[in-house]
Amino acid sequence: MTVTEALSALTALESTLQAYGHALGCLNYDGETVAPRNSAPARGETMAFLSGIIHEKVTAPETGELLDTILAHGDGLSLKDRRRAQVLKEQRDDLTLVPAREYMAYQQLMAEAMQVWHDAKLASDYAAYAPYLDKIIAYNRRFAARKDANKPAYDVLLDGYEKGLSHEALDPFFALLRDELTPVILEVAKRPRPDTAFLQQSYPIHLQRRFTDRVMQIMGISRDDCAVGETEHPFTEGFNKHDVRITTHYHEDSVLSNLFSVVHEGGHALYELGVGDELQGTALAGGSSMSIHESQSRFYENLIGRSRPFCEVLLPELKALFPEQMAGVDVEKLYRAANLSEPSLIRTEADELTYSIHVMIRYELEKAMISGDLETADIPGEWNRMYREYLGVAVPDDRRGVLQDSHWSFGAIGYFPSYALGSAYGVQMLANMEKDIDVWGAVRGGDLTPITAWLGEKIHRHGQLLTPGELVESGCGGPFDPHCYVNYLKEKYGKLYNL
Amino acid sequence: MTVTEALSALTALESTLQAYGHALGCLNYDGETVAPRNSAPARGETMAFLSGIIHEKVTAPETGELLDTILAHGDGLSLKDRRRAQVLKEQRDDLTLVPAREYMAYQQLMAEAMQVWHDAKLASDYAAYAPYLDKIIAYNRRFAARKDANKPAYDVLLDGYEKGLSHEALDPFFALLRDELTPVILEVAKRPRPDTAFLQQSYPIHLQRRFTDRVMQIMGISRDDCAVGETEHPFTEGFNKHDVRITTHYHEDSVLSNLFSVVHEGGHALYELGVGDELQGTALAGGSSMSIHESQSRFYENLIGRSRPFCEVLLPELKALFPEQMAGVDVEKLYRAANLSEPSLIRTEADELTYSIHVMIRYELEKAMISGDLETADIPGEWNRMYREYLGVAVPDDRRGVLQDSHWSFGAIGYFPSYALGSAYGVQMLANMEKDIDVWGAVRGGDLTPITAWLGEKIHRHGQLLTPGELVESGCGGPFDPHCYVNYLKEKYGKLYNL
Repeated sequence: MTVTEALSALTALESTLQAYGHALGCLNYDGETVAPRNSAPARGETMAFLSGIIHEKVTAPETGELLDTILAHGDGLSLKDRRRAQVLKEQRDDLTLVPAREYMAYQQLMAEAMQVWHDAKLASDYAAYAPYLDKIIAYNRRFAARKDANKPAYDVLLDGYEKGLSHEALDPFFALLRDELTPVILEVAKRPRPDTAFLQQSYPIHLQRRFTDRVMQIMGISRDDCAVGETEHPFTEGFNKHDVRITTHYHEDSVLSNLFSVVHEGGHALYELGVGDELQGTALAGGSSMSIHESQSRFYENLIGRSRPFCEVLLPELKALFPEQMAGVDVEKLYRAANLSEPSLIRTEADELTYSIHVMIRYELEKAMISGDLETADIPGEWNRMYREYLGVAVPDDRRGVLQDSHWSFGAIGYFPSYALGSAYGVQMLANMEKDIDVWGAVRGGDLTPITAWLGEKIHRHGQLLTPGELVESGCGGPFDPHCYVNYLKEKYGKLYNL
Repeated sequence: MTVTEALSALTALESTLQAYGHALGCLNYDGETVAPRNSAPARGETMAFLSGIIHEKVTAPETGELLDTILAHGDGLSLKDRRRAQVLKEQRDDLTLVPAREYMAYQQLMAEAMQVWHDAKLASDYAAYAPYLDKIIAYNRRFAARKDANKPAYDVLLDGYEKGLSHEALDPFFALLRDELTPVILEVAKRPRPDTAFLQQSYPIHLQRRFTDRVMQIMGISRDDCAVGETEHPFTEGFNKHDVRITTHYHEDSVLSNLFSVVHEGGHALYELGVGDELQGTALAGGSSMSIHESQSRFYENLIGRSRPFCEVLLPELKALFPEQMAGVDVEKLYRAANLSEPSLIRTEADELTYSIHVMIRYELEKAMISGDLETADIPGEWNRMYREYLGVAVPDDRRGVLQDSHWSFGAIGYFPSYALGSAYGVQMLANMEKDIDVWGAVRGGDLTPITAWLGEKIHRHGQLLTPGELVESGCGGPFDPHCYVNYLKEKYGKLYNL
């Protein structure tokens, strides 16, 4: 096989994988948004079947041969061709570790687990969910052992979400956050609580949907390329740069919950929408590692979405849609309410200051789950203990505790640290961005496109052409420094609470 | 290959086809309901690719061999096994006529045509749509010529929707409807028009959605097995008996439009939901011919949905949701408004009496389109001419004329007659049903399950195990008689308008 033949076979394989991935993504999105409840088993079978075909194509000997042929000519190739082969090689190496039948059974298990989790969460019934979680943990441990028996299993999983990541980097990262932020959290708790009562009135959902439309407009997200769905636990799915889906969840008694879901998922969407045209259809289309993806979503959610200038833009929109509920609210009041900091139960609703403690708790739990130190049955107890210890809150039920997140149900163990890392990357990117453009002028003007254009240049357009490490450098303008994040939080909350 | 081996290969093939069909159905449903506008081209590529795989599997020599093996043992097999092979053989014979590449290109063309049609309809821009329709017509003519060059091409297409159907049966059927119903339509036009102004007030869509929920409840459709989506042109998609999707379109100024969409599509859904468990996953799962399917949807929409007892049940529901709009409306007023008969522009909104004239116009157009007597560019003119001639209405624009229906965009030429046939079958089924159960007692009780159970026994549970002809006999309790339909319409409208 010549390298030209191999490249042409690679293109054909990519387009096959693209089609199967699109179908799987569509089934998943449908299942998480509009599908009827009893559809889960049959959808699980279909998804397992299609995943089996992907497994077969990626692990086929011909695929190994074509990738080897391309990578053997590494130096003579364009960066793009080399990366296409590398990224697919990594997928192939992972899939080769799992027999097709086991892989398909796992895909079906996850599809069913999502449905079981959904019901178990509503009923606060961890026992119904535990057998599924147990199997998902077992699969991940088995997979990690096969991939590298010499490394702690959890490190192997972390590496799958962010190349090179391990507990050796994360332990001191979370220790820094805990040591530096806990005193601030304790000080904040002593200060007067801002008034947030106006946020907990009735905000009719059909009006919140119109608010979503406005927020998407301000973010510069074209609805012709990006739809908004409704789901239990918001997520983003991108099929290609002209077909991205964000999701949200409306709570009638909380107007900000939907707002921050839309801004967060909108950040993911802008990333997918901004991937370079020349990468579409290749293995490099779509965003890079999860922490880079979260750097974008958390950037919009917090650094933009919870800023005072953004509150200035939102307030008239809110007043137009909800004149009674927002009567007497000024920018200062909205800004303070949107940045209320207090230890709480739900990660996705947490303020910026306490957020990474929620992530740290999941990180510690996952380490113990995967090492075998923590039995599945004991996870809720340990969850509740850590929430008490680190955040001082009593978890009243598993719905608002261990069952709140969907991640483990879709097999994502080792994903959570991405949220904290991404949050930290984003702060450093903002500092770098402020050197180049008038960030706050753009926000005050109600048009985020200059911001998105900057991120597009540094991050989005590269898709997976650059490694996560290279993207961090590109966005941050230098090596990653977690102190930047800590200092930002201390300064912001210091001002907010007169510390 | 032994017959046992062939049957086991058939089961494997059915489950493969089931998975691809599920993925394709999901992509289609997504595209018609929630997908962003610019997603169409990439979705078209994916759907073409997956259709190509189906083509490959069905036309493969092994498939021919296994079907021949099974059908050669016809007499020794169960009805179910014989029908499974027959139904797949018919699909195979059709697909074998079209080379894979041409078939895939056609699938992609249709996916794109749906999007183009959607936009063209909104803009009333037939010229933008015509090149797509032209290619779809050409494909259908080519296909018909390959299938049977000795029959008129349109007869070949009709036969694809209903085995054995041809212009020889349909010409006299539509002539009967035209000759018998036109005088009634003319008489009705001289009578006072019932008051329908109360229906054209503002009915907020978020309240109409709640009305949909109630209608689904009354119909006995479990939302755990059937979801409701929103689309331009309502349709139903059934993946399996635990995953059916109906769709509707809300018009703020028309509360009945959504009602009758939901009841119509709900009739399709009840059929799919009622297919026997033992047929799931086989080639016999899902409803039979289009006219049998429409007999069920039109049954619920008109015979039940537009009956006085159903109005009795709906009125308090409407008054609860729309007290101001429905003030002063009694059952008689609602019943008369729901059965307003007058020549109009839109088929799906037409009353029962004029409905089949809308269908007849499409039938005549399709015959001429496929025979070559009518050029694509001339279709709107001919459409408008026939609406003037047969219904006496002037078509103001193509949006309310030739662009109103989606069918041609998804390749369905020869489908429309199913609506008139199905309507006629349904009337005869109702007469037969009334001999067995207290139909109107059930409707007045606000619980349609006895009716659905009767149809389930006669029609639904059989899936495609029985032929359309056998199902007509089963439901009608004897051979089909179109006079039954004509007499029903004459009697109903005679009473309504004191003819």
